[in-house]
Amino acid sequence: AQMSLEQGYEARREFDARYRLLLRTVADPVVFVSVSDGRIKDLNDPAATLLGSSREDLVGAIFANEFTNRGREEFVEMLVNAAISENADDLVAETRRDQSEISFEPQVFRASGERVLILRLGRHGGSATAGDGAQAVR
Amino acid sequence: AQMSLEQGYEARREFDARYRLLLRTVADPVVFVSVSDGRIKDLNDPAATLLGSSREDLVGAIFANEFTNRGREEFVEMLVNAAISENADDLVAETRRDQSEISFEPQVFRASGERVLILRLGRHGGSATAGDGAQAVR
Repeated sequence: AQMSLEQGYEARREFDARYRLLLRTVADPVVFVSVSDGRIKDLNDPAATLLGSSREDLVGAIFANEFTNRGREEFVEMLVNAAISENADDLVAETRRDQSEISFEPQVFRASGERVLILRLGRHGGSATAGDGAQAVR
Repeated sequence: AQMSLEQGYEARREFDARYRLLLRTVADPVVFVSVSDGRIKDLNDPAATLLGSSREDLVGAIFANEFTNRGREEFVEMLVNAAISENADDLVAETRRDQSEISFEPQVFRASGERVLILRLGRHGGSATAGDGAQAVR
């Protein structure tokens, strides 16, 4: 069992390290949101900048509260439905802090028995990072 | 010990899942390269496209072989040095398959007792994703 424990520990550390570096490295604004409680599990600096705050302040915050007139459950349900139907065309919300329009490209996955949303954010009407695949061209 | 095993397993699965989804989600071309043997540990589709091949064919391949006139050890050493000195200004190589100029933004980290390079690739002279921070503006 000792061997398995150490192997598991090492493997976890490897993915943990790769995950953290990757999130820090990419310029795409990315947010992870727990489906069960609607809280931000993690995000990177570009995403925090779009939301008008800092990573430190946003981790653990209720994602819907970062937008105007969005209920916690309704907002997460909308994002999950868009992820499942693969149709995020009209998914836009207004940030609470500076009223900018944000678009979302959501995917949902299951990890450790919990459903998690991964969201790529974009400025609506800007050089969209959410949408129909056009983001690969740049 | 059983509890620890399961907790370790669950945590590993969580980071594993987050890591995989994140790598698949981002539009930034990203490659992970082992420092010890110079082989590609992982990469995403945008990076594979830049290199003119597929993810499946590139995982496990020697990274330097994807470029013209690059030796395995010399190339990895150059990338590690650039990561440590945080100066990747002149880091450009020509892809073997279509002779396009690729720039690199390298970082090095240690995971499971092994050093790993994470590289953000960009088309040299294009809308660079490597460089001096200008990549955050888009």
